[in-house]
Amino acid sequence: MTYAAPLAQADLSKPPVDAIALVECIQACFDCAQACTADADADLAEPQVQTMIRCIRLCLDCADICQATGRILSRQTAFDPATARAALQACVQTCKVCGDECEHHAQHGFAHCQTCMEACRRCEQACNAVLSLLPA
Amino acid sequence: MTYAAPLAQADLSKPPVDAIALVECIQACFDCAQACTADADADLAEPQVQTMIRCIRLCLDCADICQATGRILSRQTAFDPATARAALQACVQTCKVCGDECEHHAQHGFAHCQTCMEACRRCEQACNAVLSLLPA
Amino acid sequence: MTYAAPLAQADLSKPPVDAIALVECIQACFDCAQACTADADADLAEPQVQTMIRCIRLCLDCADICQATGRILSRQTAFDPATARAALQACVQTCKVCGDECEHHAQHGFAHCQTCMEACRRCEQACNAVLSLLPA
Amino acid sequence: MTYAAPLAQADLSKPPVDAIALVECIQACFDCAQACTADADADLAEPQVQTMIRCIRLCLDCADICQATGRILSRQTAFDPATARAALQACVQTCKVCGDECEHHAQHGFAHCQTCMEACRRCEQACNAVLSLLPA
Repeated sequence: MTYAAPLAQADLSKPPVDAIALVECIQACFDCAQACTADADADLAEPQVQTMIRCIRLCLDCADICQATGRILSRQTAFDPATARAALQACVQTCKVCGDECEHHAQHGFAHCQTCMEACRRCEQACNAVLSLLPA
Repeated sequence: MTYAAPLAQADLSKPPVDAIALVECIQACFDCAQACTADADADLAEPQVQTMIRCIRLCLDCADICQATGRILSRQTAFDPATARAALQACVQTCKVCGDECEHHAQHGFAHCQTCMEACRRCEQACNAVLSLLPA
Repeated sequence: MTYAAPLAQADLSKPPVDAIALVECIQACFDCAQACTADADADLAEPQVQTMIRCIRLCLDCADICQATGRILSRQTAFDPATARAALQACVQTCKVCGDECEHHAQHGFAHCQTCMEACRRCEQACNAVLSLLPA
Repeated sequence: MTYAAPLAQADLSKPPVDAIALVECIQACFDCAQACTADADADLAEPQVQTMIRCIRLCLDCADICQATGRILSRQTAFDPATARAALQACVQTCKVCGDECEHHAQHGFAHCQTCMEACRRCEQACNAVLSLLPA
């Protein structure tokens, strides 16, 4: 949460939703994008890579949608609630599916999938928190 | 449509939806990401940039979500319909809002907004076409 | 080249380099980003995925750097030659390595790697063309 | 540094360079991508946006190249030093130019540019640290 918080405070725009929830969500999106990128790569290094194909694919998708959502939420000027809501809903859905897949592999002892699952769960929750605060 | 079509044919995976609609949608997403990036920049060069703030912001958002959606649809292996649907819905919503804003400026004679509006409309339609073909 | 050319013409900024070379390079970067994303995915679907690990990895890298370069070149306002040069050099290097890896698999009959190799070679050439035109 | 460190440890691949420097660089790249995205947006909200055009443009470029570099470094499997070096060099160059521009505005009292400058300087240093450790 190194830069998102001071940047949110420095911005002249009125934050569209509670600033604490927004900053947490932005950070969770960027962190999850990194975790999913790294987990797809760690899956590729597994001797049984054939069993990780769905995990790799979902991690790549999740990295892309988390990154787009994190960027969209980082913009507070001329904030458009409908656009934010659509991105957040896509992010929640993808983090859910990717988190479930990672949880499955975490239960079989893959530490990198455990870490990625935690990133997906946190991002899903943070997106849901902002969704509940968005103006209708 | 230079590489998306041959790549879709070469892939061993069964395409999850009609290949023609999918290829058109992938291309429309990448083209719209480029158009929105360039239009945000052209807006920045306008003497009356103050009147273009909302257009710049929405174009940046639209570039990000189109890019994520184009990447997600480019992946056919272990295709997850719910993930694809969520991304497509976010892309449709964002292209609609961004296309409306660009149309407003196009009517005031901004040629770059006219071009971007066309990219947004085509992408919105192509995403809706794939959405209608996705398995439930 | 659907939108890059009209957008380049509509922009008020003076194009920093020859517009035809610039438009070709922007399009080649976005096309290569798509081709590499799709090829990494097609590799994942191969029964012998173990032999495609390096190809997957380089395609993911190449998609990321091509996308960044295509976006940077799409911006003509307050153009910074040193930034453009650095991105173009990274793109040339990555397209070269990724194109070589794809060529290796194309020679073993992988059609998707043949298509991706062509995208990488075209992008490498287009980036070199713009590099040769950049002001010192 | 929430997920990058445990993911780096969990990966089966031998880290290509010192893991501490690598993790710091990955985190600095993702943080800088966020900071630059937010700063471009905060610039857009300034009453004197006309004076911030170059800052907006460089922040957008820097966000794109930092994100690509952060993703490339997050991949340790089949690591290619020449690809990593090219991305890192582009990132150093862009962070330098963007950090200088932000410093100029920070000196005129723009708190968001001060924050972004710090993110750029940290990212530039972290990339240089990894560059010095890469195998020739």
